Amino acid sequence: MTMNLLGYAASSSKAPLELFRFERRKARADDVVIDILYCGICHTDIHYVQNDWGLTIFPVVPGHEIIGRVVNVGADVTLFKVGDHVGVGCMVDSCQHCTACKQGLEQYCKEGPTYTYSSKDRQDNMTTFGGYSEKIIVSEKFVLRIPDSLDLKSAGPLLCAGITTWSPLSHWKVVQGTHVAVIGLGGLGHMALKLAKGLGANVTLFTRSPGKEQDARRLGADNVILSTGENQMAAVKDKFDLIIDTVPYTHDINQYIPTLSLDGTLVLVGLLGNLEPTLNTVPLVMGRKSVAGSVIGGIIETQELLDFCGEHGITADVEIIKIQDVNESYKRMLKSDVKYRFVIDMSSLKKD
Amino acid sequence: MTMNLLGYAASSSKAPLELFRFERRKARADDVVIDILYCGICHTDIHYVQNDWGLTIFPVVPGHEIIGRVVNVGADVTLFKVGDHVGVGCMVDSCQHCTACKQGLEQYCKEGPTYTYSSKDRQDNMTTFGGYSEKIIVSEKFVLRIPDSLDLKSAGPLLCAGITTWSPLSHWKVVQGTHVAVIGLGGLGHMALKLAKGLGANVTLFTRSPGKEQDARRLGADNVILSTGENQMAAVKDKFDLIIDTVPYTHDINQYIPTLSLDGTLVLVGLLGNLEPTLNTVPLVMGRKSVAGSVIGGIIETQELLDFCGEHGITADVEIIKIQDVNESYKRMLKSDVKYRFVIDMSSLKKD
Repeated sequence: MTMNLLGYAASSSKAPLELFRFERRKARADDVVIDILYCGICHTDIHYVQNDWGLTIFPVVPGHEIIGRVVNVGADVTLFKVGDHVGVGCMVDSCQHCTACKQGLEQYCKEGPTYTYSSKDRQDNMTTFGGYSEKIIVSEKFVLRIPDSLDLKSAGPLLCAGITTWSPLSHWKVVQGTHVAVIGLGGLGHMALKLAKGLGANVTLFTRSPGKEQDARRLGADNVILSTGENQMAAVKDKFDLIIDTVPYTHDINQYIPTLSLDGTLVLVGLLGNLEPTLNTVPLVMGRKSVAGSVIGGIIETQELLDFCGEHGITADVEIIKIQDVNESYKRMLKSDVKYRFVIDMSSLKKD
Repeated sequence: MTMNLLGYAASSSKAPLELFRFERRKARADDVVIDILYCGICHTDIHYVQNDWGLTIFPVVPGHEIIGRVVNVGADVTLFKVGDHVGVGCMVDSCQHCTACKQGLEQYCKEGPTYTYSSKDRQDNMTTFGGYSEKIIVSEKFVLRIPDSLDLKSAGPLLCAGITTWSPLSHWKVVQGTHVAVIGLGGLGHMALKLAKGLGANVTLFTRSPGKEQDARRLGADNVILSTGENQMAAVKDKFDLIIDTVPYTHDINQYIPTLSLDGTLVLVGLLGNLEPTLNTVPLVMGRKSVAGSVIGGIIETQELLDFCGEHGITADVEIIKIQDVNESYKRMLKSDVKYRFVIDMSSLKKD
């Protein structure tokens, strides 16, 4: 039997998010049914609501930074029980048999993962709906365990902003003393600072805004470099083993390449589009430097991240809102007016 | 006492190479004096003669694919003796104390290596002169041992074209079964095919010229893909762990990125300039793919390459010329009319 639920959805790219009644697929034997307590708001939610990437299936219920409590489990579920605090991130399924999936890198599934919203279920082809809703039904393989020590209100953003920066930190083997720089201080950037610091790295923030220094240092930056300052940029030449570039809009990455060390890598996690201005290859060739990309992270590494955050007491800096304020929050996000992530208290939905 | 020698030099960017008498620096206690037998012609030689990069010190004696015989050694030399067959590549010195030098990666020396020609000696500030000459004087640290099994006539190109492709094959850990593609079949490309095949890789050549297939297969390619053929390109989607891009002029690399596997890297070894058209980041981000650069190789890895080539019987495909024909050979190289490297028989200099 499908489940009839309330949520907030946009019915078209021009429409605001509004109260919406919809059906979720029938729970299967390997499924976990989750009461949603909190859901973070990611920039991707806005892109989907606006259909910026032409991928949206309307009506869309966004939300993929989901924290909840298990209220039911299927007969075959072994990893979770009723009452557990759990999370659901950007993916709810994948092919499970390609090279990427076999490595636990479902985000690079060759057939494409099933996303938490605006995607099609691999078995019954029903549209998936995200976390701006009462409940969600997810195969236990894609459910994450939330360590008891984590604050539930602020843990949600770990499931997207967190894992998106954790995955490159982990893949490029950041450890104690690694020189890491972060470009941009938004939802992703603030997580990158906290996580890199948690790993013991020497952490630098590149920013264009002098006003961000104090916050950056509080979040974990050992150094703050104004990318508009020639002398400051020259002072960090050849310094960074890894640069995580979180900026989601067109920007010039050429100025950062000389600050990479020999064998250093600049990883783009925010920019989907053309490099403008174009990349000059000379510093890459003359210093064996790399430009790479990375998207979210796999389920195993997301659990590793959550466990790491549990041990180190790391969550996002959040502003809690009611679901009724979600459209206003989107407007504020588009003006970068949030420090650093909005999280919806889903109990507010009951008041609608 | 400086050494008075004959060579071929260009006196300006408009002048042809002509017979030239010049002084080399005094041999020091750690120096090896080498009678030059053969010298390969690299595209870099042409760039320097034309002063394309604005770096040339005129008059310039080019040549950094040098094969010779030791005729004298300084008092402190322990690695070589008179009569040994030796090689000299692109570098004759470096700072020896920076992070890169300490790793044996003198090509990335932070202070810049001393190049074999058109550079300044770190001790006496005399201009360095390359291999289009009778003799060369080089610190033993920068002299390579040529295995007895290698044909001296065709070994020279290993010291630049060879190491330039070997270094990324080695750094990115190409082994038996690794899927390697090579873009471009010139001096570098033909070495990349031979070396990747020697390492046991599954080797593909990307080319725009259907006529190159037979030669590519002879040189080691298991597959040849016409980069202009949409179906052929689609058939190798997600295939390559490493692509070595040897093309030295502006070209679109976007078409190759989707053929990289998850975590695959495209390494530019030929292109110094802007990527035109610009790079689109989507396939990088959605597949954790990288674009990197690499230049020549360190002294230790050059010796490893020579030893590997000695064991596997690998040298370049060469056309032997007399020094008197060097200007004509440059013209032919500019038309890609050489299979695959010109090598000057330096005994011809005695006839001038």
